[in-house]
Amino acid sequence: MLESVHQPSIAAVLRECLAETEVIFERQLASDFPAVNTLCRHVERYRGKMLRPTLVILTGLAAGRDPLARSTITEQHLVVASVAEMIHMATLVHDDVLDDATTRRKGETVSALRGNETAVMLGDYLISNAFHLCSRAGNPALNLQFGEVTNTLCEGELVQLSHRDDMSLDEPTYFEIIRRKTAVLVGACCRFGAMLSGAAPNVVQALDRFGMAVGTAFQIQDDLLDLAGKEDVVGKSLGRDLDKGKMTLPLILLLAQASGAERAFVLEAIERRDDSALRTMAERSGAIVRARERAAAIVASARGELACLPPSPVRDLLHELAERTVSREF
Amino acid sequence: MLESVHQPSIAAVLRECLAETEVIFERQLASDFPAVNTLCRHVERYRGKMLRPTLVILTGLAAGRDPLARSTITEQHLVVASVAEMIHMATLVHDDVLDDATTRRKGETVSALRGNETAVMLGDYLISNAFHLCSRAGNPALNLQFGEVTNTLCEGELVQLSHRDDMSLDEPTYFEIIRRKTAVLVGACCRFGAMLSGAAPNVVQALDRFGMAVGTAFQIQDDLLDLAGKEDVVGKSLGRDLDKGKMTLPLILLLAQASGAERAFVLEAIERRDDSALRTMAERSGAIVRARERAAAIVASARGELACLPPSPVRDLLHELAERTVSREF
Repeated sequence: MLESVHQPSIAAVLRECLAETEVIFERQLASDFPAVNTLCRHVERYRGKMLRPTLVILTGLAAGRDPLARSTITEQHLVVASVAEMIHMATLVHDDVLDDATTRRKGETVSALRGNETAVMLGDYLISNAFHLCSRAGNPALNLQFGEVTNTLCEGELVQLSHRDDMSLDEPTYFEIIRRKTAVLVGACCRFGAMLSGAAPNVVQALDRFGMAVGTAFQIQDDLLDLAGKEDVVGKSLGRDLDKGKMTLPLILLLAQASGAERAFVLEAIERRDDSALRTMAERSGAIVRARERAAAIVASARGELACLPPSPVRDLLHELAERTVSREF
Repeated sequence: MLESVHQPSIAAVLRECLAETEVIFERQLASDFPAVNTLCRHVERYRGKMLRPTLVILTGLAAGRDPLARSTITEQHLVVASVAEMIHMATLVHDDVLDDATTRRKGETVSALRGNETAVMLGDYLISNAFHLCSRAGNPALNLQFGEVTNTLCEGELVQLSHRDDMSLDEPTYFEIIRRKTAVLVGACCRFGAMLSGAAPNVVQALDRFGMAVGTAFQIQDDLLDLAGKEDVVGKSLGRDLDKGKMTLPLILLLAQASGAERAFVLEAIERRDDSALRTMAERSGAIVRARERAAAIVASARGELACLPPSPVRDLLHELAERTVSREF
């Protein structure tokens, strides 16, 4: 997400902090066993946008006394950035078991390559190391809050699974699921970034809401890409939501506005897992456009939360990052 | 493991503490979502011997000033007991994914009942809650040490998976795997029990070694039962180690002593997954007896570690518990 950054000095600070985050990440996972290290190196190839560490660092800078100085970012910021990325990686590895996906980031998934069993244990190794790393930061509040975040995240996944093939899934339940499984961790990244920079409680809370909104918009965009994206651009298996009986926002909107006959037609296409027919119907009916509009409105609310911060190039970058969440094609 | 306890007062204290451990366990897992609570209730049926909580409580009593008083056991002991059991439950749920097992404790496994995906996420929910509960104890040393334990545990599982179908697995590697995947958590339970009772460092270390030995013997007995036990007595699917290409101690001993022709015969039976032939060969060759002797010698070393404690009925109970680890048939 760095390429079109216009402020070279912030870009340099962010790049330096992300590089240090990666060092902490890799050191934490280093094992005495070559077999374990090989698996971890494979997982590191999953690493894509580094959205969560980027948000910890940018909110840490934006809420600090000197938003342009490397010294605003503490060791605890970097540890939190690594922990958040490690938790996120664990969910990717375990989602691959969940979704029986064979492709992620244009490389083979751990589950396809080494079996579900290795993917389960590798995900556990990542979760365990995330908590261990967090404990090493010497700030018990972080442990407690990360524990709450991951409890919520797992509940979101379990509730989603309990609604498998539930074509009557409504919008509020959909938003509750993505709030838990995606938004809460992204919100926590922004909250921690501000908290560790000594921001006032109202700023910490506003940035938590900013992150929650960014995470929600990000998940809607993921769902849109899964239905209407191009596999070679997105770089991972698409149409998996449908295969796994997950109702996503465009389909919920498509069903909500369908007349009796259309509705039967849509339901039948869902049962057939006919993603091509559904994509066409969702496009023609305007459901795709409306889902995009919903995501855009959420991004606008995210931008509104940034008003708590003094104007700075870092704040502008957070604006830009929120926008890009929904304009991205991968 | 309470049935043949001869000291009614200790039995009563232990029973009370275990009941409080269960309350903490259940309260921690309680969710706003009925679907999550249903799954947790299902997992609670897995609960069998409560070996880990029992060890936290008994070592806590034995290393305390008054080994017969309920007041020797603190809230932190009970939290640690719940955390250890929750981690253990998570490994059972995830092992069922690993092993494709359909039966555990004479009830259906989560994975067989609700699919691998739910089992993966439910195990994650247990791990997350274990760390969250641990953080709530307000003792950062516990977080750090539990994190180290679970890192080691996951490494043990990953190393075991990397040796799948490796018929040349040797004894030292086998012992390193079970040390990590089983013994370290049981050792930590005894270490924490003593530590939280304010025991001297040499006692804390001796009880850690006691628990490591008990855990090792326990795992060997599990492996023996998987090869040579009776499914209706053990109460879970047997022969799974073989199905999943896991070499266990009786097979390693059988191969180590086999002559050229015998060796080829054994290897062929392993490849055929012929557990009946292997059981017969392991029995006739004396490999089963030798594996039992190894476990018994480890239990004897465990008993030796208890010499650091003053004589008490609780110490006798720890002796008895160590013995029962290898005499059990389920």
